[in-house]
Amino acid sequence: MPLTPEQQEEIDALRATPRQTLRAVSEGMEKHLYTAYPVLDHGFVRVIDYMGDDNAITQAARVSYGKGTKSVSNDEGLIRYLMRHWHSTPFEMCEIKLHVKLPVFVARQWIRHRTANVNEYSARYSILDREFYIPQPEQLAAQSVINNQGRGEALSGEEAARVLEYLKSDAARCYDHYEEMIGQEGQQGLARELARMNLPANIYTQWYWKVDLHNLFHFLRLRADSHAQYEIRVYAEEICRIVADWVPFAYAAFEDYRMGGATLSARALDALRRMLAGETVTQETSGMSKGEWREFETLLSAKG
Amino acid sequence: MPLTPEQQEEIDALRATPRQTLRAVSEGMEKHLYTAYPVLDHGFVRVIDYMGDDNAITQAARVSYGKGTKSVSNDEGLIRYLMRHWHSTPFEMCEIKLHVKLPVFVARQWIRHRTANVNEYSARYSILDREFYIPQPEQLAAQSVINNQGRGEALSGEEAARVLEYLKSDAARCYDHYEEMIGQEGQQGLARELARMNLPANIYTQWYWKVDLHNLFHFLRLRADSHAQYEIRVYAEEICRIVADWVPFAYAAFEDYRMGGATLSARALDALRRMLAGETVTQETSGMSKGEWREFETLLSAKG
Amino acid sequence: MPLTPEQQEEIDALRATPRQTLRAVSEGMEKHLYTAYPVLDHGFVRVIDYMGDDNAITQAARVSYGKGTKSVSNDEGLIRYLMRHWHSTPFEMCEIKLHVKLPVFVARQWIRHRTANVNEYSARYSILDREFYIPQPEQLAAQSVINNQGRGEALSGEEAARVLEYLKSDAARCYDHYEEMIGQEGQQGLARELARMNLPANIYTQWYWKVDLHNLFHFLRLRADSHAQYEIRVYAEEICRIVADWVPFAYAAFEDYRMGGATLSARALDALRRMLAGETVTQETSGMSKGEWREFETLLSAKG
Amino acid sequence: MPLTPEQQEEIDALRATPRQTLRAVSEGMEKHLYTAYPVLDHGFVRVIDYMGDDNAITQAARVSYGKGTKSVSNDEGLIRYLMRHWHSTPFEMCEIKLHVKLPVFVARQWIRHRTANVNEYSARYSILDREFYIPQPEQLAAQSVINNQGRGEALSGEEAARVLEYLKSDAARCYDHYEEMIGQEGQQGLARELARMNLPANIYTQWYWKVDLHNLFHFLRLRADSHAQYEIRVYAEEICRIVADWVPFAYAAFEDYRMGGATLSARALDALRRMLAGETVTQETSGMSKGEWREFETLLSAKG
Repeated sequence: MPLTPEQQEEIDALRATPRQTLRAVSEGMEKHLYTAYPVLDHGFVRVIDYMGDDNAITQAARVSYGKGTKSVSNDEGLIRYLMRHWHSTPFEMCEIKLHVKLPVFVARQWIRHRTANVNEYSARYSILDREFYIPQPEQLAAQSVINNQGRGEALSGEEAARVLEYLKSDAARCYDHYEEMIGQEGQQGLARELARMNLPANIYTQWYWKVDLHNLFHFLRLRADSHAQYEIRVYAEEICRIVADWVPFAYAAFEDYRMGGATLSARALDALRRMLAGETVTQETSGMSKGEWREFETLLSAKG
Repeated sequence: MPLTPEQQEEIDALRATPRQTLRAVSEGMEKHLYTAYPVLDHGFVRVIDYMGDDNAITQAARVSYGKGTKSVSNDEGLIRYLMRHWHSTPFEMCEIKLHVKLPVFVARQWIRHRTANVNEYSARYSILDREFYIPQPEQLAAQSVINNQGRGEALSGEEAARVLEYLKSDAARCYDHYEEMIGQEGQQGLARELARMNLPANIYTQWYWKVDLHNLFHFLRLRADSHAQYEIRVYAEEICRIVADWVPFAYAAFEDYRMGGATLSARALDALRRMLAGETVTQETSGMSKGEWREFETLLSAKG
Repeated sequence: MPLTPEQQEEIDALRATPRQTLRAVSEGMEKHLYTAYPVLDHGFVRVIDYMGDDNAITQAARVSYGKGTKSVSNDEGLIRYLMRHWHSTPFEMCEIKLHVKLPVFVARQWIRHRTANVNEYSARYSILDREFYIPQPEQLAAQSVINNQGRGEALSGEEAARVLEYLKSDAARCYDHYEEMIGQEGQQGLARELARMNLPANIYTQWYWKVDLHNLFHFLRLRADSHAQYEIRVYAEEICRIVADWVPFAYAAFEDYRMGGATLSARALDALRRMLAGETVTQETSGMSKGEWREFETLLSAKG
Repeated sequence: MPLTPEQQEEIDALRATPRQTLRAVSEGMEKHLYTAYPVLDHGFVRVIDYMGDDNAITQAARVSYGKGTKSVSNDEGLIRYLMRHWHSTPFEMCEIKLHVKLPVFVARQWIRHRTANVNEYSARYSILDREFYIPQPEQLAAQSVINNQGRGEALSGEEAARVLEYLKSDAARCYDHYEEMIGQEGQQGLARELARMNLPANIYTQWYWKVDLHNLFHFLRLRADSHAQYEIRVYAEEICRIVADWVPFAYAAFEDYRMGGATLSARALDALRRMLAGETVTQETSGMSKGEWREFETLLSAKG
């Protein structure tokens, strides 16, 4: 349960007091504002603020391309055109600010997306809460045997139990010692900026994260992808659901051209043309490496 | 007169239809929304959208620094503290989107600020209007004799008249030929992406420009400064007036610590300490170069 | 002829004095260093400095992925893998610094790529040379009738002659007046920061431009593309030739996966799968818009 | 001892084979190349590559400012001028690539500097080594009583011993369990991307970090500062020593204007002017807050 009654109360209060504005309003987004959607065992995602809507994207595009594109009925088509042709600047005209609570090892992946603004909870300054991510049994997965960077089947039986026990007891002991070290009763108390080093990477942190829609789509393409680590993917998926309501045309175009799309190399395109002309193409005659050929075959046989 | 009746009508319509939102609202900013404030002879600045207010800055800072800083009465003090100690990330949590019409040579300076999002009118795609910046007589200044990168007194008499005549007639002739070259009556018509090269740098362009408050302050510090070229400074000053209403605490701190402040070198600080102790310090005994010493003296004698 | 004898002499002198270094050296790049390759009528591109080579890319990747990838024979395969899977950070480990002389209207497109470092010749501070881009007759193209943002056939006969005459005489007159306005004999002389506004956009400027390889590839994909305006494309193509010698494996992967590749939408992939299964797919049954379908057909029928 | 004999051997081999280049060479930097300078108990900093030298900075400035600044004797003065007037782009023309081994909690601070390129060791892909930062006794400091974000005196006696024991034994136990969980003998073995979450933040990671000189100076100003946490400051100080040899003029200017300098607010400048005119100024009559006044007094009484 990620939210305390006090937090829920604060959210309810914020949601109860609408104000007037002359700005663009996305009705689909207003209904999400402030609500903390639970992710993992103690995490959440909630929208703190946003700027713009689908119309802000086409409006910016029309500054560039002039009056020819003005008919309102064209909004969806124009957005699809912009997405297809990698015109990224109109999508940068929308902005979102999220409050995210997430385990430190997820935060370490997330922060690699540099084109965003971040204010993170400071463990130099403040004391971290006793909250650790402990995977659900079905997520306690074995190392993948085919992919260095992935996971396979869930562990089972004794092994699963032992792993769970380690994760829980190590987190608890590290946190007990963290608390004891910074405590100031009967002792000086270790500096917080030092004591935090004893905390394992499944402890939760939180931050405000602000990003424009273009860079958010880039983040979502990588992190909502099936190859992303499960623990960051669930955050990305939650954000996808929100964005779909915020900018429905842009999100649909993103799904079609980015999430559901694929980039083919010159060699792959050449193989395709030959296949469509009736030729039987093999890995050897394609010029592709084995790895690339395997990915190519998977792509062509996938269900849409 | 920068606005056509149609544009004014559109602005009036936008301003007439407030909607409800749950987001943070800056009342000071709402009154500016959409209004085009004239700058130079044909330019303007107008706010298209914004995100956040003073409270959004302290709210983000409190995510980092925890509960100790919560009392509302502290908002101004906290913002001043953040500004004084160069804590830039909380200021990045506010965002503004402007529509700006400006001469091309001003746009070329402006765009050097890279941390912003831009959609500019495309002269490849569309036809530019016949609008050129022609300086007011008092801005028709001579080259500075002490500063390679500055201007001195206004030109006068015949010289001023001749310069004005050149600027006007060259702009007119270049635009006449531009129009004639792209015309398609009785001829093919030159591609717009080529014809635009005949237009001088005082022609007006326009763009949407979106930036966060931290980077906007950086822009304003450089461009609202007395050393900035007049033609960009008037835009920066207009934006200053808007920002002062949008985030009054942050803007006041910016004025005190950035616009009105100064950075002193180790040598200058050392000289100061000696002067306060009663020593007479000269350029020679200060270790400063002549140029730096001159700037140091100017700073200490300036009226606050 | 873009280079003066003095410039050529300076380049020859720089090229005559090799020094010793312990850094990674790209032999293919050393032969290009300092040489100014002519582009358009007065422009050039020359390499001032570089950091890294193909090996720097794989070296950085191996810091991330550990020892499994160590065999040297794998360098090309690893680079292709990184490019195929959009692992951009290893490519950011190479850097190039170029000196470019280019018309202002080209510089205005170029600068939109924000992730680069730039030092441009300042027309506020210094006087611009009398050098204007005047297109070759075969590049004096008509506006495209099918694409707002493109050009069609070359103009011919009287129209071509008239356009050339306008471009040349307007440039000359504007420059004459520029010179006259800033002149200080018998008059004060207009400030350079103002006088420059009289110069048309085909005047040449120059800059140092420094960028990492990942962002350079992004620039080249957009600007060496057949849809890019000819006048920037010739710069991009010249840079492509240099990069091919600098990082041959990375450049070959870039050609295959980016320049020669294509991104297909989910709808396009679905159509492809159905076509490979023997179904006849039309625009109507594909779910694609007319525009997208046209692009899809063109892609499949193109020669590799 | 941070380096294995194998690593030292590799460094010696790299340092033994100079090659010829036509690029700018910094002799002061060549002597540092590849050498791993120890930092903390298991960390290090070493230079992998660099681009440019002091001359590259003035060369770029001269592209902007033209021929007036050409005399070679002026290099130091020009660099000081650029630094004093916040002309940042010429400093961006130098680039450095470092290999850094550092504790995770230090890496988390470091990565907040976004304008850099990073390739970090992937604990999703590879297994982390059993190396943890354990502070020296004199660094085992108590929480500061005056600064939420700082440390005071070193702990002593039993308390120090207990803290050391916790840090060591928790790290050892967490790593034992990490190893056991990913082990594949007689069990499936937990995915590495999950097992890593059991490791505390004092474990070491490593990365390649590439940054331009302007942004490096920004990093050093914040992290070599006395208010920075000791564990990141020692890295910054080590880098300072290297940079002083790489670009001696630029580094000296940085020390004078940034590290040793200070920014005064408008109110502080006003107080100074009054003090220099003989007036006695107090906090009350200065308009400064108590905190700002305290900092102001400290600055003026500091030894240069």
